[in-house]
Amino acid sequence: MNTLWLENQKLSYRKNVTLTSPLAAEALIKVRLAGICTTDLEMVKGYYPFTGVPGHEFVGEVVDSPSMPEWIGKRIAADINLVCGKCEACLQGRSTHCQNRTTIGIKEHDGIFGEYITLPLSNLHIIPESVSDEKAVFVEPLAAAMQILEQVHIHPGMRVLVVGAGRLGILCAMSLSLTGCDLKVVVRQPRTKKLLEDSFITTISSQDVTAEMVDLVVEVTGSADGFALARKAVRGGGTLVLKSTFKGETTVDLSSLVVEEITLVGSRCGSFLPAIRLLETGQIDPTPMIDATYPMQNGLTAYEHAARSGVLKVLLRP
Amino acid sequence: MNTLWLENQKLSYRKNVTLTSPLAAEALIKVRLAGICTTDLEMVKGYYPFTGVPGHEFVGEVVDSPSMPEWIGKRIAADINLVCGKCEACLQGRSTHCQNRTTIGIKEHDGIFGEYITLPLSNLHIIPESVSDEKAVFVEPLAAAMQILEQVHIHPGMRVLVVGAGRLGILCAMSLSLTGCDLKVVVRQPRTKKLLEDSFITTISSQDVTAEMVDLVVEVTGSADGFALARKAVRGGGTLVLKSTFKGETTVDLSSLVVEEITLVGSRCGSFLPAIRLLETGQIDPTPMIDATYPMQNGLTAYEHAARSGVLKVLLRP
Repeated sequence: MNTLWLENQKLSYRKNVTLTSPLAAEALIKVRLAGICTTDLEMVKGYYPFTGVPGHEFVGEVVDSPSMPEWIGKRIAADINLVCGKCEACLQGRSTHCQNRTTIGIKEHDGIFGEYITLPLSNLHIIPESVSDEKAVFVEPLAAAMQILEQVHIHPGMRVLVVGAGRLGILCAMSLSLTGCDLKVVVRQPRTKKLLEDSFITTISSQDVTAEMVDLVVEVTGSADGFALARKAVRGGGTLVLKSTFKGETTVDLSSLVVEEITLVGSRCGSFLPAIRLLETGQIDPTPMIDATYPMQNGLTAYEHAARSGVLKVLLRP
Repeated sequence: MNTLWLENQKLSYRKNVTLTSPLAAEALIKVRLAGICTTDLEMVKGYYPFTGVPGHEFVGEVVDSPSMPEWIGKRIAADINLVCGKCEACLQGRSTHCQNRTTIGIKEHDGIFGEYITLPLSNLHIIPESVSDEKAVFVEPLAAAMQILEQVHIHPGMRVLVVGAGRLGILCAMSLSLTGCDLKVVVRQPRTKKLLEDSFITTISSQDVTAEMVDLVVEVTGSADGFALARKAVRGGGTLVLKSTFKGETTVDLSSLVVEEITLVGSRCGSFLPAIRLLETGQIDPTPMIDATYPMQNGLTAYEHAARSGVLKVLLRP
């Protein structure tokens, strides 16, 4: 098959890459549509030492399933972590923290910026017919955004701020907005401002952020400046959710976390089922975030487009 | 009155310090017994730029109460934060985070290493007759330890580790032990080991700490090494409670908090009522921690004693 290929932080388009045949309990999936996320862009900068097919946000169609042929023809999204099922974390029902996990397109497993991928059937989730490919391609990042709601009880009486209105930050804001909380999102780009306001979400600029203004902050910039702004905005006894990975180590005043009794919550992946449900009901529509769709062989151009300031979602079609 | 006095990080014993008369809604309290804690020792090292009477752990007796004379003769412990009652935090019922608070013996208010203190009646809690002064002097630090149970749901199925078995760490361990959780405490001193084991608490050495061994860690060392050990011990998706203030800033790998979905919980002061109750029932007996009791005028010797390695609680009696 033909795929994008990442090696030594260099992205290329390769032809005739060997395809793994599905084993029992696996499926061969044809990629229908894929999304470029910030992690993909960071990997080109060397964020992870990954060699192989990048990409992990996608919607596909099962084309082979030796042990369960009833899967063939089903449109699916897929959990990006491949887990062992045997370690302590897996046995205790916390398989997203499997100690032997690989992650498609990120860690020790080929991703989906190609034509096909082979995955365990247990990773697959059926996409309802009414959910378009353009919506379904957002299942993975929306599930990650909604993980915040699994970890923290966010209720209507809370004042909540999102710092970092990028790809993931917008999905966080859309998810948080459903709780009825008093939500504000720090925005820089006029387009993002409009997109959020069209979704009935209040936006402010970073100059409007005052000390201890909210009960909960979601930090989605992954930068020291963003962390500092988030830290300033959260009140004593409040919660700061870390939703973005940071490059390197950050200096943190742990004493102030103790004295002000701040809770920091690290948040990564989430469950696909609630994300699929909200796309199906229409309560969340991420499609206004789509900037462009490129054929897979133009992947390098697509990456460049996605890396531009203010650009939100760039899609790839094999 | 005669008091200890801290100025330019130097401790002295002063005679004839002026005493403030109680206003309406205040009480004049005679100090009966006081405890030296790590914060007191740190302040001599310049942890806070405090000038005045140090000390905040104590049991006293009301000797004057102009507006409510029924308080006279009552034995009391007192909340250490003096709050404004008017700021946003106070009005929202989070007065421990009052934006205008002062703290006795720590921040902009004289403490209790003297003969008397004047405090608002609203700060006072009556000590039941059956609770000795030697127990009641632990109400403040025990309340701080029990604050962990207010912030995090700790249940019998959890594996919990306490890192740092000093004065506060032991009280944390005693409080956590009541939850029925699978508790282990990292100890270095043979005496602490015996004291905890006499309270049916399992101890281990830092060499026994393995990666991701517990669901929740309480860090009570306030040192970078202690934080690193705590960070190692907590499993993916677990919780790390910060119960000690740290000097300066600490370098933290925020990305690993995100990827492993760790929750950091800063924890400071707690409610006195549950602490008084557990001392009254006898479920917690901190008196084995007492190493020595000095008269207040020997306060400098008492501070030196308290600062020695392995020493737990040194008391002062006016």
